[in-house]
Amino acid sequence: MLFRSDNVTAVCDEVIAAILAENAGDAAPYGADDTTARLDAAFGAYFEGPVSVHPVATGIAANALSLAAAMPPPGAAVCHRNAHVNTSESGAPEFFSGGGKLLMLDGAHGKLEADAVDALVRAATPDRMQSAPPTAVTITQGTEAGTVYTRDEIAAISAVCRRHGLVLHMDGARFENARAALGCSPAELAWASGVDILSYGATKNGAMCADAVVIFHQGPHATQLDRFMGQRRLRAGQVFSKMRYVSAQLLAMLAGGVAGRNATHANRMAARLSTGLASLPGVRLLHPTEMNEVFVSLPPAVRDALGRCGFAVRPRPDDPSAVRFVTAWNTAERDVEGFLAAAVPEPVA
Amino acid sequence: MLFRSDNVTAVCDEVIAAILAENAGDAAPYGADDTTARLDAAFGAYFEGPVSVHPVATGIAANALSLAAAMPPPGAAVCHRNAHVNTSESGAPEFFSGGGKLLMLDGAHGKLEADAVDALVRAATPDRMQSAPPTAVTITQGTEAGTVYTRDEIAAISAVCRRHGLVLHMDGARFENARAALGCSPAELAWASGVDILSYGATKNGAMCADAVVIFHQGPHATQLDRFMGQRRLRAGQVFSKMRYVSAQLLAMLAGGVAGRNATHANRMAARLSTGLASLPGVRLLHPTEMNEVFVSLPPAVRDALGRCGFAVRPRPDDPSAVRFVTAWNTAERDVEGFLAAAVPEPVA
Amino acid sequence: MLFRSDNVTAVCDEVIAAILAENAGDAAPYGADDTTARLDAAFGAYFEGPVSVHPVATGIAANALSLAAAMPPPGAAVCHRNAHVNTSESGAPEFFSGGGKLLMLDGAHGKLEADAVDALVRAATPDRMQSAPPTAVTITQGTEAGTVYTRDEIAAISAVCRRHGLVLHMDGARFENARAALGCSPAELAWASGVDILSYGATKNGAMCADAVVIFHQGPHATQLDRFMGQRRLRAGQVFSKMRYVSAQLLAMLAGGVAGRNATHANRMAARLSTGLASLPGVRLLHPTEMNEVFVSLPPAVRDALGRCGFAVRPRPDDPSAVRFVTAWNTAERDVEGFLAAAVPEPVA
Amino acid sequence: MLFRSDNVTAVCDEVIAAILAENAGDAAPYGADDTTARLDAAFGAYFEGPVSVHPVATGIAANALSLAAAMPPPGAAVCHRNAHVNTSESGAPEFFSGGGKLLMLDGAHGKLEADAVDALVRAATPDRMQSAPPTAVTITQGTEAGTVYTRDEIAAISAVCRRHGLVLHMDGARFENARAALGCSPAELAWASGVDILSYGATKNGAMCADAVVIFHQGPHATQLDRFMGQRRLRAGQVFSKMRYVSAQLLAMLAGGVAGRNATHANRMAARLSTGLASLPGVRLLHPTEMNEVFVSLPPAVRDALGRCGFAVRPRPDDPSAVRFVTAWNTAERDVEGFLAAAVPEPVA
Repeated sequence: MLFRSDNVTAVCDEVIAAILAENAGDAAPYGADDTTARLDAAFGAYFEGPVSVHPVATGIAANALSLAAAMPPPGAAVCHRNAHVNTSESGAPEFFSGGGKLLMLDGAHGKLEADAVDALVRAATPDRMQSAPPTAVTITQGTEAGTVYTRDEIAAISAVCRRHGLVLHMDGARFENARAALGCSPAELAWASGVDILSYGATKNGAMCADAVVIFHQGPHATQLDRFMGQRRLRAGQVFSKMRYVSAQLLAMLAGGVAGRNATHANRMAARLSTGLASLPGVRLLHPTEMNEVFVSLPPAVRDALGRCGFAVRPRPDDPSAVRFVTAWNTAERDVEGFLAAAVPEPVA
Repeated sequence: MLFRSDNVTAVCDEVIAAILAENAGDAAPYGADDTTARLDAAFGAYFEGPVSVHPVATGIAANALSLAAAMPPPGAAVCHRNAHVNTSESGAPEFFSGGGKLLMLDGAHGKLEADAVDALVRAATPDRMQSAPPTAVTITQGTEAGTVYTRDEIAAISAVCRRHGLVLHMDGARFENARAALGCSPAELAWASGVDILSYGATKNGAMCADAVVIFHQGPHATQLDRFMGQRRLRAGQVFSKMRYVSAQLLAMLAGGVAGRNATHANRMAARLSTGLASLPGVRLLHPTEMNEVFVSLPPAVRDALGRCGFAVRPRPDDPSAVRFVTAWNTAERDVEGFLAAAVPEPVA
Repeated sequence: MLFRSDNVTAVCDEVIAAILAENAGDAAPYGADDTTARLDAAFGAYFEGPVSVHPVATGIAANALSLAAAMPPPGAAVCHRNAHVNTSESGAPEFFSGGGKLLMLDGAHGKLEADAVDALVRAATPDRMQSAPPTAVTITQGTEAGTVYTRDEIAAISAVCRRHGLVLHMDGARFENARAALGCSPAELAWASGVDILSYGATKNGAMCADAVVIFHQGPHATQLDRFMGQRRLRAGQVFSKMRYVSAQLLAMLAGGVAGRNATHANRMAARLSTGLASLPGVRLLHPTEMNEVFVSLPPAVRDALGRCGFAVRPRPDDPSAVRFVTAWNTAERDVEGFLAAAVPEPVA
Repeated sequence: MLFRSDNVTAVCDEVIAAILAENAGDAAPYGADDTTARLDAAFGAYFEGPVSVHPVATGIAANALSLAAAMPPPGAAVCHRNAHVNTSESGAPEFFSGGGKLLMLDGAHGKLEADAVDALVRAATPDRMQSAPPTAVTITQGTEAGTVYTRDEIAAISAVCRRHGLVLHMDGARFENARAALGCSPAELAWASGVDILSYGATKNGAMCADAVVIFHQGPHATQLDRFMGQRRLRAGQVFSKMRYVSAQLLAMLAGGVAGRNATHANRMAARLSTGLASLPGVRLLHPTEMNEVFVSLPPAVRDALGRCGFAVRPRPDDPSAVRFVTAWNTAERDVEGFLAAAVPEPVA
């Protein structure tokens, strides 16, 4: 299980405590409770500006609800070919949007490039009816390659979006890891860089089952995105009758810097792991290690060494020589060191 | 908040304990964990036969995923006009099914009648292209009127379904309350009465955010209903990365008779409340009180008396003279008695 | 076949001539041809104001595309319970809108009443998440009961729509029959009464396979309704590669008053039929005959008399004693007279 | 307009005659007429086996209805990246299927390769919930590159489909051109090669607005594909009230070998055009010319020469040096010769 993903982890103490604190007395259902009522203000303070917060149980729900709002029929969304929304959500964006289409682009190290987005959108103008019309762009922060968009890169993509009237969505399943990597504020990485709507990930970062759609009121599309989002969530089965238990998880992550602390730790562990692996003969980093994921090509000798110590290595489906390691909020430093020690190939006799 | 609904309640101790017990060490994500692996067997034992269990976070998700499987395009489902799936899910069945249609019938005390279902289905034969073709019937157990289908009533509707090749779905948000009312086994109220697929409700009955789609393998449609249900849930944002915390709630409800005990208590409180209210002058029961809901018409004098004691009464949107009271697993007997005492109108001077 | 419906008729000479005239030389596909280019201006002149015209092959396509634009997810539309969009389109509105919901009301003689619409919309405010939020109202002109909304009645419903920000859609499969009945201009019955988007029916009135979505630019929703309508139609399989043959039919109907003349004739035949039938003993008109449909209850003696003369009478599925007769642009006066003669019951000996 | 596409052409005489012959008297609506009743038998004879025929107005409707039946939710379909269903239908397959996903593969000259399909399907097994599960494969015959799948190539793909239980759909917008190229019978190119469901194209080949979904009863999926196809079409706005005028077009194409004759002529014109262009200096064929489409790279000198003679050349959006020329049933030999003469670059002085 070691380094398999950050979603294999238990729930951090602060979140457990918040859930237990919530478990006293009755509360109004479907988000009309006092805890949920605090979400907008808490996220507003965190992001230094007005927002709407919509709690959901999974990152896929956050992405799919966001994209459904961002690409009303017959709209389409531009994404990276390896984006989670395209490869790993079993068609959730297409389903939630009533048949919306993902328009895919390639790009090095998991990133969309602003110029390529611009060219694709220009080619699919409203005059060309055969193309599903792009109404949104979605980027993953940090990316599926373990890299992180800089603020300038996001702003460049946002500029393309603004030019063409498109919504910019950010899949922030690892938003906090990216933010820790860049050392910037939540606002700087979100609306101040032109992001209109964010899937804020808390589950991988220490929560139990709590992510959120965050709509930034500064953007030109906020009204459209927010319209009927309550009903949209409810009809998607994402309005919980005992909502307070989900909302409490989100508040616990923001309070006292838990989210940032957890992500920073995970990133530090990944950096150590990456440096250690890269120093081994024949190991090659496939992407720069910029947050809590390490993508490497491992030579057989390293695989064998790990295998002898009981560390099973899961190859990537599309490239058996490539491996992804993910660290998490609770990764123990001794586990990293133990793993690195095990990875040293035996000297050739 | 008193008697507002059974979804305002906290989480029962057994479920909290199960969640805390789960919070140790890593586990495989997306339902590949050991706890989730026990679900099929645990529900199979509970229902005395082979089943597939698909945990979800809300009852709406359970209903909508069930109906989507039961009415593949261009199918339709027959339901009572007041069914939760029609009135209170913001179009979830239509959305999940890609535009499926609900075909509505009236029926006394919230119940569909087998003959009426049969007549509707006959009128919408495949030869009449203008009608969306019925492929499923959905009933709520207990009903939206607080009543309970008898086993014979379910079997009669099931016979109509079998005759026409339709799936029978049961919205069992209050399945355990109905079961406690009838004093029958889970199997008797489900597959043995001809139910093909069940939305099993645990949240209202004491869990935090855990319901389940249960597919009974005995029925003629099990293979179709089960096909790709995993992907169906995943693309609906209902496959939790840390699934074990949801699965543990379900197991805790089944273990040691928690579900039955909680429901039995709620029913008993409703019976006391119903009897007490019905004895007041001018109070009229709108439906028989058969489980944990009481539907009454309250005269102004009773409303006034309650109001003076601080009990706000929420009228039904469609009939201001009608009121619904709901008891729950944690309703205190003293609260029922206090409420009844407060409801006694002041004697006319 | 006599009086079965107005869609059993052949194509009128003017339309055939237009199709043949079109069949010379090549033309740009998908509506980029010269004939199609004339549609907006021709309909604009006809309706005395700026419009967008989107030709489609069927009335269901016109309705469903209109409603999909008028109820973007998660929106809903208010309609009469007997509306064609609810009873006879196999779920087309739900399908085209990605799961939108129809919210049904009753109303005498097939008509929605403004007050009832207002009450329904108020009850389903955005605060009540359980209701799919109404974003549109759809009325049928003339109605499914053969009646015609007066301009005041439409304006009253439009006022409700404007108050709540809803789109007003008109299913105008028999728009010309209604217009002929009222003796008003196309504009008066459409945008000047507050209609935002119209399904304009030509097929029943003499065309071959040509109806149109007409969006009136005067309304507050025109931009939203028009946005990406081309792509919407194309992805619905309603952008014909040889569009000119459909466009030519629409132009032929408008030119030289064909549409009005055809409809006026059909109405006149229905009036004669209605008067004649109503004079027979035991015959009862179920709805006023206001355009080209006659709804009657026929006593057995009349049915028998008709049967003896070879006129099969098709009872309504929901009421075997009720019969609908429809006249058309090509109904022969002698056929009406012959039918009426045949309907006279034999004198009791 | 010359060589722009085969959908710019007028309607052939045989089809016009059939439409005019249809225009006498009333007929039952919605396909209950005598002409439509002959379709199954006529196509059955043409394809030498039992079929169901569903007339539609456009090729996109044929494809999208076919794929919706072949990939019921949450299914997906494998297609070539350049397939019309992916690039040119504005998301119709995703829309009609309620959010189905297209899984794309590359392949030389517009063709899917059986091995690549097999590998993709194996990688997306039901155990991997993150992938939308493939339930269908769609191929275009002739392809978007102007090439033609051989019978062996189709059979190899069909074998993969049968192994995994997938439906094989053929987009036959130019089925007759492919058939003429291969010199085989309709049956040999369809069910006898393992095709389950075919979009049969008549419009490009000389009809006005008539294509058809043809379901072959020999295949293992026929019952599923056929189920409720009437309602599916109706709710998609593809059941015409005056269906006979569409059905008559289809019958006219099959009768007396019109379809084959038209396609053969178009192919012959393309062959001549291809040979002529390929003989010019600097011209390079991008794909083999196997039916009625010619894909070439034209040097500036040839473009200039054509331009001087008034022939505008439309570059491909994705590759400005590439040009597609399409011949049709009515392409005049003298136009081909004139074009080729014009394309000869002026000698360098």
